[in-house]
Amino acid sequence: MSGPILVVNPNSNAEVTAGLDRALAPFRLGGGPEIECLTLAEGPFGVESRRDGDAVILPMLALLRSRSDAAAVVVACYSDPGVETLREQLAIPVFGIQEAGVLAALGRADRFGVIALSEASIARHRRHLRGLGLLDRWVGEEAVALSVAESAHALATLEEAGRRLSARGAGALVLGCTGMAEARGPLAAALGVPVIEPTQAAVALALHAVLAA
Amino acid sequence: MSGPILVVNPNSNAEVTAGLDRALAPFRLGGGPEIECLTLAEGPFGVESRRDGDAVILPMLALLRSRSDAAAVVVACYSDPGVETLREQLAIPVFGIQEAGVLAALGRADRFGVIALSEASIARHRRHLRGLGLLDRWVGEEAVALSVAESAHALATLEEAGRRLSARGAGALVLGCTGMAEARGPLAAALGVPVIEPTQAAVALALHAVLAA
Amino acid sequence: MSGPILVVNPNSNAEVTAGLDRALAPFRLGGGPEIECLTLAEGPFGVESRRDGDAVILPMLALLRSRSDAAAVVVACYSDPGVETLREQLAIPVFGIQEAGVLAALGRADRFGVIALSEASIARHRRHLRGLGLLDRWVGEEAVALSVAESAHALATLEEAGRRLSARGAGALVLGCTGMAEARGPLAAALGVPVIEPTQAAVALALHAVLAA
Amino acid sequence: MSGPILVVNPNSNAEVTAGLDRALAPFRLGGGPEIECLTLAEGPFGVESRRDGDAVILPMLALLRSRSDAAAVVVACYSDPGVETLREQLAIPVFGIQEAGVLAALGRADRFGVIALSEASIARHRRHLRGLGLLDRWVGEEAVALSVAESAHALATLEEAGRRLSARGAGALVLGCTGMAEARGPLAAALGVPVIEPTQAAVALALHAVLAA
Amino acid sequence: MSGPILVVNPNSNAEVTAGLDRALAPFRLGGGPEIECLTLAEGPFGVESRRDGDAVILPMLALLRSRSDAAAVVVACYSDPGVETLREQLAIPVFGIQEAGVLAALGRADRFGVIALSEASIARHRRHLRGLGLLDRWVGEEAVALSVAESAHALATLEEAGRRLSARGAGALVLGCTGMAEARGPLAAALGVPVIEPTQAAVALALHAVLAA
Amino acid sequence: MSGPILVVNPNSNAEVTAGLDRALAPFRLGGGPEIECLTLAEGPFGVESRRDGDAVILPMLALLRSRSDAAAVVVACYSDPGVETLREQLAIPVFGIQEAGVLAALGRADRFGVIALSEASIARHRRHLRGLGLLDRWVGEEAVALSVAESAHALATLEEAGRRLSARGAGALVLGCTGMAEARGPLAAALGVPVIEPTQAAVALALHAVLAA
Repeated sequence: MSGPILVVNPNSNAEVTAGLDRALAPFRLGGGPEIECLTLAEGPFGVESRRDGDAVILPMLALLRSRSDAAAVVVACYSDPGVETLREQLAIPVFGIQEAGVLAALGRADRFGVIALSEASIARHRRHLRGLGLLDRWVGEEAVALSVAESAHALATLEEAGRRLSARGAGALVLGCTGMAEARGPLAAALGVPVIEPTQAAVALALHAVLAA
Repeated sequence: MSGPILVVNPNSNAEVTAGLDRALAPFRLGGGPEIECLTLAEGPFGVESRRDGDAVILPMLALLRSRSDAAAVVVACYSDPGVETLREQLAIPVFGIQEAGVLAALGRADRFGVIALSEASIARHRRHLRGLGLLDRWVGEEAVALSVAESAHALATLEEAGRRLSARGAGALVLGCTGMAEARGPLAAALGVPVIEPTQAAVALALHAVLAA
Repeated sequence: MSGPILVVNPNSNAEVTAGLDRALAPFRLGGGPEIECLTLAEGPFGVESRRDGDAVILPMLALLRSRSDAAAVVVACYSDPGVETLREQLAIPVFGIQEAGVLAALGRADRFGVIALSEASIARHRRHLRGLGLLDRWVGEEAVALSVAESAHALATLEEAGRRLSARGAGALVLGCTGMAEARGPLAAALGVPVIEPTQAAVALALHAVLAA
Repeated sequence: MSGPILVVNPNSNAEVTAGLDRALAPFRLGGGPEIECLTLAEGPFGVESRRDGDAVILPMLALLRSRSDAAAVVVACYSDPGVETLREQLAIPVFGIQEAGVLAALGRADRFGVIALSEASIARHRRHLRGLGLLDRWVGEEAVALSVAESAHALATLEEAGRRLSARGAGALVLGCTGMAEARGPLAAALGVPVIEPTQAAVALALHAVLAA
Repeated sequence: MSGPILVVNPNSNAEVTAGLDRALAPFRLGGGPEIECLTLAEGPFGVESRRDGDAVILPMLALLRSRSDAAAVVVACYSDPGVETLREQLAIPVFGIQEAGVLAALGRADRFGVIALSEASIARHRRHLRGLGLLDRWVGEEAVALSVAESAHALATLEEAGRRLSARGAGALVLGCTGMAEARGPLAAALGVPVIEPTQAAVALALHAVLAA
Repeated sequence: MSGPILVVNPNSNAEVTAGLDRALAPFRLGGGPEIECLTLAEGPFGVESRRDGDAVILPMLALLRSRSDAAAVVVACYSDPGVETLREQLAIPVFGIQEAGVLAALGRADRFGVIALSEASIARHRRHLRGLGLLDRWVGEEAVALSVAESAHALATLEEAGRRLSARGAGALVLGCTGMAEARGPLAAALGVPVIEPTQAAVALALHAVLAA
């Protein structure tokens, strides 16, 4: 029997963790691994800069070293903080949600777009995608000026951003933040294109890694 | 309750289908979708050329149109025949195993390599990867001169190919054929790097699409 | 004495074939190969989807196998259906008109644009160009919402699309359909940039292959 | 009646011009344009450096300005000296033979290789291909240490270079110098892959431009 | 004691040279190399085409061969005429200002933009950047329709172009002409992003080469 | 009068800092900024993993916040830890030495190679270069199995690595570690190609930024 998939929210906002927990319910299956969501107590209330992202890496590493039962790890922050370092330091599979969300989108359509929470994050996401060598299939991002909390409920705003991305050629959309999980289904229904919730996508990759082991 | 994930083996070799069926056992989970493996009666005994790949597209489409219960489709042939056409024609998610295997590898390591069954297939795979925009992270392929049937049992040969790919910088390996599923675990254990069985990878993407819907 | 260059129109619309035949008249030269235009009886009336393109591959292959006198083949459909398969299966040179049109444009200018018949085809063309590794020099496509029949006569509409592409940096234009051949000359005169009719471009490549052999 | 296609040999070695003239005989067709080969009197005996290439640009421009009858120009030196400048300054189509040779190869195979006359030229060719955005499909070059004069007759040496390029994945070969035209046919026969003589390829593009005008 | 860094203005407009001389004053440091600005007497009054650029290469080479005391050379024209040829022919380091300006921008920000003097030059700059393999980090260029002389004083126009480039994602700006040096400081202050004067950037690279030798 | 350029050695090995200090002596010029080398007391004895790199970011940030007099910062570790974060958090120019070394090499030659201290670091460097979009011009790296201390004196070993990189097409070399500065001059003399010491290159970029301000 394998250990759990740990989903680490690297900010200290337990409401975000609770939202992730609800979003992952469909992935808890009979005979499959447990999926356990953790809040990083040492994290900032939100990861909103590179500095914030750097600051959570060593605490996440310490937390994960204390959980030798884990079968796989998901870092549930769209800037993928510490993912490469955790891969270097831990023997188990490690997944970042930006990476996973984008990979899931690539499995659904030739080109994808991302709904970002702020203009400022777009340049960081683009920089990350170049590092991943995946810019060729990215149509771009559209920012909705919403807080994490608002983003779950602002369906009309998300829908408008999604339509703009479709018009730019996106055949699939990625939600560029952990807070929009509840909007995923309604948005997909309204737009008629696949909409990827990135923590779900990362957990699916983790399930694959654990079940195939 | 969702319909099944259909895994279509587009060749008419039922032994290959049976092998896939065994490889997918771990992905049949309580509360999750059924996973049903089908043999394409009209297919050639093996898909070994572009022409073979072209010939199976319309029969697969007809087969899948007759299965309106399906929740998602996996085309279980490493040359991904018909995947784009099926996406165009069907309303459900469609996954190709080369695409899915490579995406899974990208979620585990910066660069990956592929163990191919023949030299001749490498150029086709490379061509496909350029079309997917994913060549940047591909270290290359190593061919083992084995039949599909032999490939399941020739662990030493596969291991040697895998070591060559690791030496070329591959941090993850993809098995470039449907016949090597049984070798996946031993190979990963011997080499100490993630080894991706591509039909499992595609089924995991399909699970994600179905469970998140 | 070499055999003919066969230009296969993979749809069953004989008027399109007749238009191609007229457009190729200047390439029938004393001492050069014959240029013979064929209609694929088994083809759809128009190739308007990937599925349509897949459906014509095996019939084209059968037709061409029956013509062992052929010196080279041009597939006269802008989606280049079956080109790679025919190259695999036949010993003679095979040319696709999208490929050829784009290569001709690359020989005339640093960057090129394409006049497409529909928005829907742009994404397929872009996907094909990525596969060919030629996106760097593509400024984009502009769609004119015309039928194949209308496109030959709608000079003002084509001119407007051409001007938009020039403004985006295109130094040469490719007509993204077989039906616009008659508009080529007037359009080039009106816009002052090279305008490539892709079947002519493919026949020129075929002439090269045959004459140099 | 259109004017001639001018093929300018930018070095002053008239034997090279005579060789080009013979190689182009098959492209002189009834009803087609004349093909006239010129030697640049002001050119060096061979173009063997960037400096040599720079030095021939203005004299070529002067020569071509004196030939207002020309319908198209081919610059018959594999380093493509002055091609962009001539395009800027002249109203007629201008073709470089490296560009044309590579474009012809791209119309025959997914990836191509080049037989170069010297190791030193490979870096310059590679640099030019990056500028053209065509590196993705280039498997590399193999140098044969031959003079221009020797290269026409050293079939065994060329064949060996060609086999090495095929083994690296080249499905078509380009002769990277104007002096190897006589070897083209025997080499293609020996190797079983398309072998492109680049001045022929450029003349074919020029024929297309002139005939379609 | 090393020889001087020679900054060659390849046009014959001595006012441009004088402006460069003033702009380079801060780089004349105690114990460092002299920085000497030269006007190319044989140059055109302005380098405004590829032809102009070609015409200055051999005269620059002759001038530099006469200056065996030089420790390094900067070609002070944004089209980088002759830079590769001078590198081939001279034993000392050679720097082009477009190259240097862009490299300096890459050291300050993820993506950069360029303020060009004319629409016509943008395509040439873009072509050069593809040749340098640096397009991935270029957001584009904005042209100000100014003469070289006007460009030094048209701060409002430059600022507007700079803001458009920032909005397109540029984190640093390069002045795409030798005439705007005086505007550099005010522009950087107004926009709050690094603004690179390319001759200064090239002299800094030359200083590095000379001081480290 | 501007403040100093701070060169931060993020490891706690003061001997490395002393070596940097000596290597930077030529860049201390009359009238130019001071160049001050600092050892990060909180750093590990060597930065040998991503984790080590992550661990020094916040201490470097604290150190630099305490030095409001600084005019520019150089992070003197070849893995460029914290460079993007420092750029986000500080108002002054920040330079990483891998970035700067590579940019300097790009200003000297079409393609460059890197002498790395260990095989393990090559994959990290390659990953960083993809993120920077600069892989096109990188021929690769050759590892010398030396400690940082040994690397300064093992000229024969470095020379052999340099020759291998030249044979792979490198026209300039970058020393991929802070410890080899003393070998720079002898290596360049022995190999006849530019050899870049990356901390010197970064200080030259910093000088540019400070002098032009």
